[in-house]
Amino acid sequence: MSDAATPGEFELIRRYFMQDVEHACSSDHVSPHQARAGVVLGQGDDCALLAPAPGTRLAVSVDTSLADVHFPRDASAEAIGHRALAVNLSDLAAMGARPRWFVLALTLPDVDAQWLEGFACGLYGLAREHDIALVGGDITRGRELSITITVHGDVPDDEAITRHGARPGDLLAVTGTLGSAHGGLRAWFDGERDEHHPLVAAYLRPTPRTSEGMAIRQMVSAGLDISDGLLADLGHLCDRSGVGARLEASSIPVDQALVASLGAQDALEAALNGGDDYELLLSLAPKHEDAVRQTLETLGGTLHVIGQITSEPGITGVVSTGRGWQHFHASEPSTGATP
Amino acid sequence: MSDAATPGEFELIRRYFMQDVEHACSSDHVSPHQARAGVVLGQGDDCALLAPAPGTRLAVSVDTSLADVHFPRDASAEAIGHRALAVNLSDLAAMGARPRWFVLALTLPDVDAQWLEGFACGLYGLAREHDIALVGGDITRGRELSITITVHGDVPDDEAITRHGARPGDLLAVTGTLGSAHGGLRAWFDGERDEHHPLVAAYLRPTPRTSEGMAIRQMVSAGLDISDGLLADLGHLCDRSGVGARLEASSIPVDQALVASLGAQDALEAALNGGDDYELLLSLAPKHEDAVRQTLETLGGTLHVIGQITSEPGITGVVSTGRGWQHFHASEPSTGATP
Repeated sequence: MSDAATPGEFELIRRYFMQDVEHACSSDHVSPHQARAGVVLGQGDDCALLAPAPGTRLAVSVDTSLADVHFPRDASAEAIGHRALAVNLSDLAAMGARPRWFVLALTLPDVDAQWLEGFACGLYGLAREHDIALVGGDITRGRELSITITVHGDVPDDEAITRHGARPGDLLAVTGTLGSAHGGLRAWFDGERDEHHPLVAAYLRPTPRTSEGMAIRQMVSAGLDISDGLLADLGHLCDRSGVGARLEASSIPVDQALVASLGAQDALEAALNGGDDYELLLSLAPKHEDAVRQTLETLGGTLHVIGQITSEPGITGVVSTGRGWQHFHASEPSTGATP
Repeated sequence: MSDAATPGEFELIRRYFMQDVEHACSSDHVSPHQARAGVVLGQGDDCALLAPAPGTRLAVSVDTSLADVHFPRDASAEAIGHRALAVNLSDLAAMGARPRWFVLALTLPDVDAQWLEGFACGLYGLAREHDIALVGGDITRGRELSITITVHGDVPDDEAITRHGARPGDLLAVTGTLGSAHGGLRAWFDGERDEHHPLVAAYLRPTPRTSEGMAIRQMVSAGLDISDGLLADLGHLCDRSGVGARLEASSIPVDQALVASLGAQDALEAALNGGDDYELLLSLAPKHEDAVRQTLETLGGTLHVIGQITSEPGITGVVSTGRGWQHFHASEPSTGATP
């Protein structure tokens, strides 16, 4: 049993992921190693040594991205690198945490210089945008391409956004539009290979809302990111908060490109159940609505109120099903294995 | 593309890995969720929220264990769970860091209750011994069994053991004996399936030296854990410290069971190059030798001096090769992709 790479392969790996590399790719992206705030000791020892900021909590999350489960194997290496980090950054955004450091566990079926360069560009490009530093990693050879990233952020004591603070009477709102990622995945399966296609880009290159989460964390009562789908994630929020919710389907924001691609009915269905959008689902007291909206707009984002938190458990709503208007309940506890 | 497990499968997964489980297995091991010091918010939200101790550095390391690469697929689930965490704890031991929290990314080809129970027992049993709490995870279905663990420890400012502090004149020493894990792997390939066989146990259930690392961190000048093999890891230490080393092969501690199994010559070869021992390789000023030895013996361990740090780069030594005594140099830079 051995995962030994050849010396040349190790040289390649080091070229893209080790700390002495300033420019990992040919674009203007640079290695996140330049952003080393709080890094006492980076790669090259048994552990990274980090200095968390005093007065903060450390926010930690892990997510695995597996070829042909979480992304299409034939997506560009750059998109795969971007997406693998983005879904993790989105967990920090959901807590309102400031991105600090991440570690990367990469399992590769083979060592291909061009693929590694693209992957590093996608990963480092996004890392730089969100000011998060790569501080450790483990690269293994295996049959399946698999990327596991653990992200670390910090958030001042008692300021984290959690899933358990929603209160009856709070407004329910989302950043951005929903359903586009699901539309992009369907377009990909239908043969669309332009990664700049707006729906495909929504799926392959989601934008984690880290700045938004940090900016509004003190104005919202609860929140999480929409990865499983609006209904499923709203279910998680309600379960943890011990509340229910009433959705107004007509208020759910859907991109025009999605409606053009799927039609209004399927677009709404994608928004409700598609998942992979990585927008934030928030609850907030009505008095904070204007301030939250203004803060998000300052950051180039949007806020759409889509319902209300209720004291009765379960999610109710009136949703057009194509067969008419359906009043639905979603009272199942959350089924995700991911915390 | 979906990694969806059935509701029954999620229930199983939750049973073994979620926080409301007190007894994950039938033995007297309990879930590490009881040890929740510093855990502000555990599983069930987008991130865990942790409270690092003031005045400490956070030590972070990630390692992937892949079936038939890092462990035999047909080892017991309990051994697989133990080993996956042990190799990560060993990285904390190598820094002298106190284990605090870990996150688990598990990719499973199928969801099997009996296997999951065994895996959880192995994992939690070791977690409890080392007082480390599971605070997050991600479970995915994939073709290959793969376990990626990110461990977090803390160590007082400026007390961490690193690879870069070795000085000429320091003694070179190891905890425990070397080569047994390699002997165990060979025995396994030869059909030995008794996991309590001393050599097989050395391979499948290594003992991370966390207490030892913490106890001696202020008395040693540098150190790391022996995962790649003594010569390779000594190479890493020398590279990072800008020094060389002279080994005394006759002083390298080898278990009698290994000599009985392989013969003296192959036993020494296993000790030099076999790897997977997860003992600590240390450099220390001669004046600290007695104190370090006494401290380790108090913990039930041993210290064997096996050479000296030199100012000339490269590793030199006199080693019996079977063809006579070989004076060797190992001047290559480290080739491991793992920091």
